[in-house]
Amino acid sequence: MKVIVQKYGGSSVADPERIKNVANRIARKVRDGFKLVVVVSAMGKTTDQLIALAKSVSDRPDERELDMLLTTGEQVSCALVAMALKDLGIRAISLNAFQAKILTTRHHTNARILDISLSHLKEYLKDHDVLVITGFQGVTEDGHYTTLGRGGSDTSAVALAAKLKCDCEIYSDVPGVYSCDPKLVNRPKKWPYITYDDMLELAATGAKVLHSRAVEIAKKYGVKIYCGSSFTEEEGTWVVDRLPEWLEEPVVTGVSLERNQVKVTITDLTNDAAIVSDIFKRVADRGINVDMISLVKNGERTHVSFTVVPDKLDGIKELLDDTLSDYGAKYHFFGSFAKITVVGTGMRSSYGVASKLLEILSGEGIEPEIVTTSEIKISVLVPEEHAQKLVEKICYAFSLVEE
Amino acid sequence: MKVIVQKYGGSSVADPERIKNVANRIARKVRDGFKLVVVVSAMGKTTDQLIALAKSVSDRPDERELDMLLTTGEQVSCALVAMALKDLGIRAISLNAFQAKILTTRHHTNARILDISLSHLKEYLKDHDVLVITGFQGVTEDGHYTTLGRGGSDTSAVALAAKLKCDCEIYSDVPGVYSCDPKLVNRPKKWPYITYDDMLELAATGAKVLHSRAVEIAKKYGVKIYCGSSFTEEEGTWVVDRLPEWLEEPVVTGVSLERNQVKVTITDLTNDAAIVSDIFKRVADRGINVDMISLVKNGERTHVSFTVVPDKLDGIKELLDDTLSDYGAKYHFFGSFAKITVVGTGMRSSYGVASKLLEILSGEGIEPEIVTTSEIKISVLVPEEHAQKLVEKICYAFSLVEE
Repeated sequence: MKVIVQKYGGSSVADPERIKNVANRIARKVRDGFKLVVVVSAMGKTTDQLIALAKSVSDRPDERELDMLLTTGEQVSCALVAMALKDLGIRAISLNAFQAKILTTRHHTNARILDISLSHLKEYLKDHDVLVITGFQGVTEDGHYTTLGRGGSDTSAVALAAKLKCDCEIYSDVPGVYSCDPKLVNRPKKWPYITYDDMLELAATGAKVLHSRAVEIAKKYGVKIYCGSSFTEEEGTWVVDRLPEWLEEPVVTGVSLERNQVKVTITDLTNDAAIVSDIFKRVADRGINVDMISLVKNGERTHVSFTVVPDKLDGIKELLDDTLSDYGAKYHFFGSFAKITVVGTGMRSSYGVASKLLEILSGEGIEPEIVTTSEIKISVLVPEEHAQKLVEKICYAFSLVEE
Repeated sequence: MKVIVQKYGGSSVADPERIKNVANRIARKVRDGFKLVVVVSAMGKTTDQLIALAKSVSDRPDERELDMLLTTGEQVSCALVAMALKDLGIRAISLNAFQAKILTTRHHTNARILDISLSHLKEYLKDHDVLVITGFQGVTEDGHYTTLGRGGSDTSAVALAAKLKCDCEIYSDVPGVYSCDPKLVNRPKKWPYITYDDMLELAATGAKVLHSRAVEIAKKYGVKIYCGSSFTEEEGTWVVDRLPEWLEEPVVTGVSLERNQVKVTITDLTNDAAIVSDIFKRVADRGINVDMISLVKNGERTHVSFTVVPDKLDGIKELLDDTLSDYGAKYHFFGSFAKITVVGTGMRSSYGVASKLLEILSGEGIEPEIVTTSEIKISVLVPEEHAQKLVEKICYAFSLVEE
């Protein structure tokens, strides 16, 4: 029995015509001899609409009930896909998280998958060629619905593929993984293969084609992911552990851009690691995610900069007002920055990416506010108004556009 | 522990404001010392919209998948009601058919409730003051969703009340049981009490305030039903086994009107009971519901008339073409009739209702096409264009309007 997992995103099932199109694609695969586990997201913008509905009933909707509400979105699309498949003569059945026994933790709106009953899936696969399973959702041991957070349907699909030890095809309205967002640069390169590590960095810094949690699970369990478009037959991208040997590894595989960053700078701290650690601990305790951090010692004093997103500003201000008076330090905010990240597993074995990147910036007369690096990526914080132009320059410099 | 079941129909939860209104009503009852099991229908026209969605994907949607689709409607409204209740500080939880363990037969789109786990409900009632349970739906033993057919939420509510041995309050946009549809006659009487038997006949002949299956269960298990409006504080109607002794029983409690009836007449059948029985058996085998039947022997020949709704005409024609040639009989259709039904348990101990009714018709110069009677009702088939005027005359004659 050849089994494959396919996942269709919200835009792929946004209306009845698209649902029928998806059913036709699935039916073709069945006729090719496969059994399929198909994970479907809610139709189009359904999840956003349900959240808006909840907020019109309650300012702070109870999370257990919010999950109860949101899980209906995928149940609707799964039932419709199964109907369309049965119309094509395919033995299909839709299953929600109760029926597919997708067991999760109790963290409503942000649960983690604990287990999926393999014997149960196999039982259903005996009598059916296609199981259409609700993505994004699970149930707790004591029978409450949970959801897996944004991008959760990708996670559901990869977890199912890990359990079934098969490949996972993820379909959306984007036909693969590109070196850069086509809205930022003309004709970015589409990769036939990309590594889990590169994909993780790209997903974490804004590429929306695949959710990073899903990539983490895929990496952990060695699930090969194929990213393609449900609207075309164009070849997509395989996300794999390592590139095929015949393929020359590019040094840089992607450039991403995150706009709307605020830089917070704390100056004149005493040189004491405990102080800096204390500040970031308090920030984390508030549930505020700090992104780029740079620290400079200047004689007797330490200066720290980091970035946050604007909606966390009030929280940060309040906290720093409380904290910094204890340490006799000051803080400042600087707005309207963008973070550009250059990603590439190839950097591990190649030098000069950082210097080349800084050279491009300096050629434009721009000094980065913060620079952070890891083994396989470099991020620079630059004034937002120059970001678009810089991304283009970087793409050309690193051969990330089709010639 | 004082427990009560309440049911809110689709119009009572049609939008966020109405949902909050319902939550306030429930909260008041909690503060009065009750624990509540609240059954909620899908918001407004949701079920119709979901059916339309299914039909846009498949001409004949698979019934198992249709149930999977439709059950989402009540889950949405239940989650929202529970959210609104929690906002008011009420310990509430929403439960779908899986969670409330409402076990049904496997007849998708038209299942019957087999059992509801009482111990399970009581367990939930320990930690919560309100269980908000999805109406209209159940699950089979092997974990598939079912729905109970139109009006199924009333059935869910009464079945829960039967199980919990408590009263059942059914709220809609109609503030009780009236002697006649207010669209047909000005100021019909609203009854403070009505018997199960009267309610059954009225529900079966078009009064939409309460579904007849729900009344049957209530009668069987002695569940007292209260019908009221969720929009006013106006006193509603109690549906009970017998009227309170102090209340004088009206002879006639209701007049209903069903439009759009077609009369089928078969003439010149040989006088043979087996033939008539064979014809009606064949009709039933086709799933066609025949309503009023009258049979007249005329010498050697038998003539039969009955009514059907227009969308069954093609089926009936095909069948009679096949059947009647065997018997050398002919058939005719006559269109545009309406059936007026006069209901009253009081008829059991009162004479003259039929003659009074026929007198009203004759006063208007109308001869009924068919008359059928039972112990507690009389129905007449009349030309549709006279129906409205006749209903009014009948209401006045039997004192069914407020003075």
